Formats: sequence, structure tokens, C-alpha cells
Amino acid sequence: MRALLLNATLKRSPEPSSTEALAGFVAGALEQRGVVCEHVRLVDHVIEPGVVSEPVTARDEWPALRERVLEADIVVFATPTWLGQLSSVMKRTLERMDAMLSETTVAGVPVAYNKVAGFVVTGNEDGAHACIANMAQALIDIGFTIPGQSWTYWNKGPGPGEEVYLTTDDREWTHTTGDAMAHNLVAVTRALQLHPIPKPPNA
Amino acid sequence: MRALLLNATLKRSPEPSSTEALAGFVAGALEQRGVVCEHVRLVDHVIEPGVVSEPVTARDEWPALRERVLEADIVVFATPTWLGQLSSVMKRTLERMDAMLSETTVAGVPVAYNKVAGFVVTGNEDGAHACIANMAQALIDIGFTIPGQSWTYWNKGPGPGEEVYLTTDDREWTHTTGDAMAHNLVAVTRALQLHPIPKPPNA
Amino acid sequence: MRALLLNATLKRSPEPSSTEALAGFVAGALEQRGVVCEHVRLVDHVIEPGVVSEPVTARDEWPALRERVLEADIVVFATPTWLGQLSSVMKRTLERMDAMLSETTVAGVPVAYNKVAGFVVTGNEDGAHACIANMAQALIDIGFTIPGQSWTYWNKGPGPGEEVYLTTDDREWTHTTGDAMAHNLVAVTRALQLHPIPKPPNA
Amino acid sequence: MRALLLNATLKRSPEPSSTEALAGFVAGALEQRGVVCEHVRLVDHVIEPGVVSEPVTARDEWPALRERVLEADIVVFATPTWLGQLSSVMKRTLERMDAMLSETTVAGVPVAYNKVAGFVVTGNEDGAHACIANMAQALIDIGFTIPGQSWTYWNKGPGPGEEVYLTTDDREWTHTTGDAMAHNLVAVTRALQLHPIPKPPNA
Repeated sequence: MRALLLNATLKRSPEPSSTEALAGFVAGALEQRGVVCEHVRLVDHVIEPGVVSEPVTARDEWPALRERVLEADIVVFATPTWLGQLSSVMKRTLERMDAMLSETTVAGVPVAYNKVAGFVVTGNEDGAHACIANMAQALIDIGFTIPGQSWTYWNKGPGPGEEVYLTTDDREWTHTTGDAMAHNLVAVTRALQLHPIPKPPNA
Repeated sequence: MRALLLNATLKRSPEPSSTEALAGFVAGALEQRGVVCEHVRLVDHVIEPGVVSEPVTARDEWPALRERVLEADIVVFATPTWLGQLSSVMKRTLERMDAMLSETTVAGVPVAYNKVAGFVVTGNEDGAHACIANMAQALIDIGFTIPGQSWTYWNKGPGPGEEVYLTTDDREWTHTTGDAMAHNLVAVTRALQLHPIPKPPNA
Repeated sequence: MRALLLNATLKRSPEPSSTEALAGFVAGALEQRGVVCEHVRLVDHVIEPGVVSEPVTARDEWPALRERVLEADIVVFATPTWLGQLSSVMKRTLERMDAMLSETTVAGVPVAYNKVAGFVVTGNEDGAHACIANMAQALIDIGFTIPGQSWTYWNKGPGPGEEVYLTTDDREWTHTTGDAMAHNLVAVTRALQLHPIPKPPNA
Repeated sequence: MRALLLNATLKRSPEPSSTEALAGFVAGALEQRGVVCEHVRLVDHVIEPGVVSEPVTARDEWPALRERVLEADIVVFATPTWLGQLSSVMKRTLERMDAMLSETTVAGVPVAYNKVAGFVVTGNEDGAHACIANMAQALIDIGFTIPGQSWTYWNKGPGPGEEVYLTTDDREWTHTTGDAMAHNLVAVTRALQLHPIPKPPNA
């Protein structure tokens, strides 16, 4: 079983990222369950605006990233929160995945079917539920299956302040929830591997 | 396999409901796949505000409705669109289901785990994606699994007008999509019945 | 200048309500600026499902509540957060206001024009931005004007716990923001009273 | 009075854009009311990910675009709909405007105060209300005032198809609504120019 963790922080490497750190915790919980995990910090790559799988410009790195999505059984979408919403880097990635709506495997099944998605949200402030709602709706459109309670998040409560996931001592609920998230992702992925959704009537 | 279709129209029986009609199409597609379907028009029942499973008043009919949710393998949440959003009848139903967050089976599994949810949205006007995003996020919180492309909808395009799902001739995409929705709901439910999510570490 | 504060808590009087308490703080800040404030705990009233201004049943109290909305210059929509979203009591109230879309004053101006809306959100957990997004979109549809930074909220940060607005010591940002909210609501209301939006071309 | 229309299409110039065409109709309605209008097709410019006003890289064109936002009285945010949501180009633009939260004029007023925002959404499919909700929430956070009914949209109704705003004959409601939008934007802008929101207590 393979998982891809897509980190949509706005911070380029090697700047520390709270989103990467919490995605890393979830990756650890997946690895304890035998999942091979791979991380991508999306902002380190050029992803051009568009809704096609082909390269939009010579610089466009989406086609290679798309291959890694296609190879994964589990994709964890990890985003920071800005203005109470998901990041533009996450938005752009989901937008390129719009092309998957009409792409099928050789068996005629949409390419995202039988893949499972989970969510990680970090932020200084409120907005995790709004981020999860937007990511879940987009991925259900594309064909991913979303297990119950397949997310975790951390934020500080109301208003600005210096504290972030990377510096806080208050991680217990976030980690317990992230561990359950890994449990749920693995269980639903296994069920779908053993009994995959067959070609739908509209494909 | 049993499905419960929850119709959150604002119209009391026997007034015709477009939402009921489209949910009925989806029920037909489920029945063709061997699913036993049951319908509830929620507005015909008293559902008191609250976040508990117990009756809030002597009139409260939620406890009996909750039993029907617990007996179902598949729950289809069907809502009209008002002001671009889901109905207050749907909102109230989801709100009562908040109590399920801390309820487990005798095996210690949250009661909504291994249940699968799908969505039907009708409207005069735009708003289906917003309704699906809100319902999906709430149900993922509660523990339902959402298969890819497990929804269908109908609306008329921009602005007011007389045309509704019940009167339109333009149902082809909505029905093709609703048929695929039934296919996906049944496939994921079967996978989870054969390989259910076990008790999670935080339950 | 008159303000109406609509508290959409699920708790009936006289049970204490964090949402009422924070709405009360905002009312105090409005009163300091000369605004006459009135509170309604919506759940104490019968509001039937529907999208009409007329009584839906003999028990329906919406028509009287609607009069109070029409008499107000400022309406503050105060909601608790359940499952990361606004309450069904708030949803039902907004839904009844859908009828205002086609109601005009004797001057032919939609009844909600030149009224100003603000938002209060309380919760144990994350969801304030999602609540504000949904309330703002619905009210902009209806015709209310939303001043910048016309909201405040309180929640505890990630995960469950006993702490709520009523019991917390950590109210400083929430109150500072609520005071600014009152400032902005009053300033925009005054501007619109002196220079109201005239009858629009589509009314 | 000056308006800036920000077109967040994914299509680079000179490819025709339905979003630009509908924004152009709104610009015409603003010009009839004496407003000087300026258009920007955002995707023709490099806008780096980030939440600062300063250039993030040598290629970053946000600082110049930000100047044009600051010079405008009215900003119309025009977006296409992909996966039922606003475009990544719009998301990135709003994200950079996050920096305005802490920027004030020489009078100590947040820079977005007394600016007015409106919305244009085009799409093949449903999603306009979700786009408006997200844009409105973000801009209210930043300090923009949103007049009632300050948006218009066009989409085709359910499912895919070739028809778009540029090719449709069915524009009447969209244009009538867009004309009212211009009326409302101008009226609220004028009211705020004559009676601006003064420095708030938290600035």
C-alpha cells in the first residue's frame, strides 16, 4: 500500500512548515501500518494554472506529479489555512486534477476510483472545517473515496499569535485524531483493494 | 443491503417534491442492484433542535428516525436548494446526528463507521456543490464513508423560473449520474461489509 | 439606530448560552455608540420550515419575528458551531428570509437594502469562518450590506473539551474584534442612512 | 469613482474568456454610471504564492497589481468555476491580499476599508454560490464592504456541455442582475465616500 502526502504550504524548502510536520506525523502513523509514504512539497514545483494533464508550459511539473498521484493508493491533502480557507497551492493542485474526471484505466474505471483521500489542516487560526469541506467536495467529484474521520488538524483558537503546530505543546488531540485517520485510511483502502469499485455505467 | 433516503424538502406530504422524485430515481437504481430502500420525508416529522439522541420533548420523533439511520447500510441525503444552500430540515437532521460522534457499537466501533453516504440535490437555481460540500464534511466528521461520485443533482441554470426537476424534460445527465451514484454506493458498501473498518485507536 | 441580535443557540431559555453572552458583548459595544439593541433567542419561538413571510401554521411565530427584522437597521446573526457549521435554528431563520428577495418597500426598494448585517460565532471547536461564509452569502443574496470586519468569534482550538466562551478567561482578541465590529456596523449604517441605495433597475 | 475588474480565468490572453466577457458587461454598466473601469487578466501576470505585499521573487508582479487594488474604489472579483469552486488564480490573489489585514492608511484606517467588492462567476456547471461565499468571506476578513446583491453569474445548469456564457443566447437574467449589481456597488461606494468608516478601535 502506497501513500502520497501533498503538502500545500506556501513556504519553499528548506523553510520549516507546520503543515509538513503534521503530515509527517500522519505518515508515521501510516508507516506503522505498513504503508510506504512519499512526501511532496508542492510549492517547490512549478504547477501551471489549467485543467489538463498535459504540460501547459515547458516549465510545468504537473505531469510528473500527476504520475505520483496515479501510483498512490492513499493521497493525503495537507494545507495551511489563510483567510480561513485552503491555500492557493492546494487549489491549483486540485484544479489540475479536474482532468481526471474524464480519464479512465485500461479497465474503463475512472483513474481516481478506488483511491482514498485524507486531510491535514494547520493554521494559526480557525478554518479547518472549511478547508476539509472544499477539499472533500472536489475529490468526491473527481472520484476519490473519503473514509469517515479521515482528517486531523491543529490551530490555535481565535485571533493572531505566534503559536503554531511546530511550536505548540498542545498536540494530544491532533495526534490521537491523526492516528485514527491513518487507521481509517488503511482499512478503507484495503477493503477497496480486495473488492474494487468496478467500471460504472457512465464511464 | 438496506438504504434509507432522507428527503429534506420543506414541503409537507402530500405536496409533490422534486427532491423526493429525484431521490426516487436513485432508489430505483439502488433497487435494481438488490438494495432494499426506505424513504422518509423529514418535514412530516417533528425533529427538535439539539445534539442528543434522546427525545428533547415529548413530541420529538428523532429517536425513531435515528433507529432507521442505524439500520441502514447506505444513507442518501436529499435536499432542496434555498439561497444557494441546503435546507434547514437537512441541517437539523445532521445536527441531531452530531451525537453519533461519541456513540459506538458493542464492538467499540463508532456507529456511523462502515455506513456509506450519498447525496441528491435539486433546486430552481445554483447551489448543488455548496450543499454537497456541507453535507459531506458533516458526515465525514460523524464517521460515514463517502464514495467517489456518489451524488447527482438537477437545477435550471441561472435565475428564477418555473421549471423544476418534476417538470423538466432535461433529465438525462442527472439520471446517468444518479445511476452511477447507485453503482458506487453499492460497490463501496459491499467492500466495507466484507472488510469492515475495525475499532479505531481513539474510540 | 436600532439593532436586532438574533441568537441561534440550540439551548432554550433560561439555559445559559455562550452565543447569547458574546452577542451581549457586541450589543454593549453598539449601545456605547448610541444604538438601541433588542435580543431574540430564536429557539424559544416556533419558526416553521418554509420560504414565505406568511404564517405556515397557526403556531408559526416567524411573521412577528420578521417584523422585528424589518424594523432594525442592523441585524447581528449569532450562531453556535455544530459539526463545523452554523446551527439549524440559524439556517431556518435565513430560509424564511428568502421571501424578502421579492419584497419591496413602498419606494420599490428591496426590504433588506440599506440594512447592515454582522456575525457572532461561538463554538467548542473550529468552524467560525465556515459559518460566516454561509451567513454572509445568504444575506448578500437577500440584499443586506456586509461591512468589512463585521464579525467576531470565539472557539477553543482543536478538539473537544469543557471550555466555552462563558467559562474562558481568554476573551481579549474576541472582545477587541467585537468592539471593532460594532464600530464598522454603525459607520456603514450611518453612511447608508444618509445616502441610501435607491431603487435598483431590476426591482 | 474607479473600478478594478480582476479576471481570474485560467486562460491566457488572447484566448477568449467567458469570465472576461461577463466582467465586461458589468464594467459597461459601471461606466454608464460614471465609473472609470480597468481590467486585469490575472493569469497573464506572475503572482507568487505568499501572504506578503513585497515581491516574493524577482518575477513577482503582485506589488504592481496591489497598487491597482489600492487605487480602486470598487473591485470586482470575477472567477470561472472548476470542480464547483473558484479558480486557483482567484485564490492566489485573495491570499496575497491577506497582508492587507495589517496595513493601514496614513489616517490609521485598514487599507481595504471603504472599498467595495462585487462578484462575477461563470461556469459550465453549478458552483456560483460556493464561489461567492468563499470570496465574500475572505474579503470581509480583509475589510472590504459587500453591498447586497452585488454579484451576477452564468452557468448552464447540470452536467457538461459545450455551451458557455460566450456562446449562449440565454443571458437576460444574468445581465439584469449584473446591471443591478453595478447600481448597488456605485450607491454603497458613494455613501462610503461621503461618510467613510473612521479608524476602528483595534487598528
